[in-house]
Amino acid sequence: MSGKVVAVAGATGAVGTEMLKVLETRRFPVRKLVALASARSAGKRLGFAGGEVEVQELTEGSFDGVEIALFSAGGSRSKLFAPAAVAAGAVVVDNSSAFRMEDDVPLVVPEVNAAAIRGHKGIIANPNCSTILLAMPLWPIHRAARVTRCIVATYQAVSGTGAKAISELARQTAAVMGRPAYAEAALLAGMGVRDDRPHVVDGLERVAYPHQIAFNLLPHIGDFYPEADTTEERKLVDEMHKIFSDASIRIFGTTVRVPVFRAHSEAVHIQTATPISPDEVREILAEAPGVEVVDDPAKNRYPMPIEATGRAEVLVGRIRRDPSVENGLAFFLSGDQLLKGAALNAVQIAELL
Amino acid sequence: MSGKVVAVAGATGAVGTEMLKVLETRRFPVRKLVALASARSAGKRLGFAGGEVEVQELTEGSFDGVEIALFSAGGSRSKLFAPAAVAAGAVVVDNSSAFRMEDDVPLVVPEVNAAAIRGHKGIIANPNCSTILLAMPLWPIHRAARVTRCIVATYQAVSGTGAKAISELARQTAAVMGRPAYAEAALLAGMGVRDDRPHVVDGLERVAYPHQIAFNLLPHIGDFYPEADTTEERKLVDEMHKIFSDASIRIFGTTVRVPVFRAHSEAVHIQTATPISPDEVREILAEAPGVEVVDDPAKNRYPMPIEATGRAEVLVGRIRRDPSVENGLAFFLSGDQLLKGAALNAVQIAELL
Repeated sequence: MSGKVVAVAGATGAVGTEMLKVLETRRFPVRKLVALASARSAGKRLGFAGGEVEVQELTEGSFDGVEIALFSAGGSRSKLFAPAAVAAGAVVVDNSSAFRMEDDVPLVVPEVNAAAIRGHKGIIANPNCSTILLAMPLWPIHRAARVTRCIVATYQAVSGTGAKAISELARQTAAVMGRPAYAEAALLAGMGVRDDRPHVVDGLERVAYPHQIAFNLLPHIGDFYPEADTTEERKLVDEMHKIFSDASIRIFGTTVRVPVFRAHSEAVHIQTATPISPDEVREILAEAPGVEVVDDPAKNRYPMPIEATGRAEVLVGRIRRDPSVENGLAFFLSGDQLLKGAALNAVQIAELL
Repeated sequence: MSGKVVAVAGATGAVGTEMLKVLETRRFPVRKLVALASARSAGKRLGFAGGEVEVQELTEGSFDGVEIALFSAGGSRSKLFAPAAVAAGAVVVDNSSAFRMEDDVPLVVPEVNAAAIRGHKGIIANPNCSTILLAMPLWPIHRAARVTRCIVATYQAVSGTGAKAISELARQTAAVMGRPAYAEAALLAGMGVRDDRPHVVDGLERVAYPHQIAFNLLPHIGDFYPEADTTEERKLVDEMHKIFSDASIRIFGTTVRVPVFRAHSEAVHIQTATPISPDEVREILAEAPGVEVVDDPAKNRYPMPIEATGRAEVLVGRIRRDPSVENGLAFFLSGDQLLKGAALNAVQIAELL
């Protein structure tokens, strides 16, 4: 029998749904798919590879015979159940932040540090979405000219928060535009979002975020540290240092949620140790796997979330010199956080196994 | 007779409408208001100070007896008609970019360089919206610790493009959400936007922008230079140097349009010559006129466009150390670009006269 027994923990979530699709579209050799989710979703049937699989409740006993377990069910469930999967003989690719910074857990973007998976002890971590998307163009530039400094401002879609947040943006938008909840069904259906009962504050559903997201921005992703950085902002720094095996890059960022459904964007300002021109960067990135240069301002061509949505590649453009500093360079990227930022990267890691 | 004869050129536009409101709310001593706009709007009646004024067509002959002329009718109309206003004896406060970088035209943010108006030769320029909003917190920090480097990523509302763009975001949002054009009337009415006939591409109105703005981002504000910067990005640099009378601050930025109706936001990463702590910055900004510190992450309090909308103050928060660099500091701001970013600043300049 060829192929692997693959479990997806969190199979009904925003990322889990994409994991099933990516396993199909990349023809991952799946002998058997085990779809796992919370008790609430158990019994649901999900389409997969022309057939259907029934969702089972995620428990410690779920991993009998499983060879590869893709986890995207939140950090606390990863901590609870990933050890059971490893004990049952599976290799876990974990999309949560639970194990990312542990010394014996490789943190992998296949285009950057595929070799790191060799040292795994049963768990391989998938980096945070905004980190993966930034690593894709940053690594080839780093190899060519050594990046010494990197300042990032993010424009992150609600899909990063999950299916509930996609629904929340749709409902709030409908409500702000003066129409009650009956009207957004078409959009919800189009996005494949389940219709959870909303928690309404001031006439607006508010489950995923503490403030309105429709027609607004929240400079708040994750939780706040006492120093006022967010967990998301620290991840950008710590995870990039680990993925690049290079803590000398001085990284800092501000992460912001925007009323966009699916793809994340980032405005990136870097300095390099050796000079590199925008044209050289475009050439390097044109050759880089998983990156597409979209950079023809005269024709209004630049990365945008609506163009990155559904694409495997990270789109990079607005590549230009920053003349205000020595060897300064800026670019803008958009990438589908559910694909390369999550599900696709996880499946690529599984392919390396 | 007390008070001044004040003309507003572009009185029916997004900024002009706010200029009339700000003249009222700040009780500017207006003896007579002359509302000027294009021929298309001539004859319209606008409410002002409890009465009504009839809009007249903006021509070279419009300025007889006018003492102060507030221009917000676009750069080409400023170039055409501001000299006529000056010749008629008026002092022009121009909101366009037409004269901003000319040597004998003061470029003024009253909280920063009020004294600069002394040298005027009839025209005083109002800076670009994103520049004004950034100058407000940057100047007090600069005075305290000398800002040596400033990297900005903007999140700019559609109001910066004008009334057409506000309508475009509303219509596109309705269309994306599966509802035809009949439905957004409530929103348009609420925003005070006129119902221009749309130019429809792929089912979406597209007049103000080359791409969909609903649920999307455009890293494109203004026009592109051959070096791939936008006019908006250069304004941030050149105008700040002029306002601060200090070209030593190394500024660079990426400007991005976001699907927000009214207030602009900016993620700002700076370095200072002398050390300054986040607490010291909060103290300085708490005392700074026109700035309000909104910075209590533990209570989910930070600047957001929906809170800045309609406010005279620039909201500043997420103030924190950037430990990746010596004397590094970051903050996030939101400010109403139609008020402090345009109409309010112009009226404040007029008050200085």
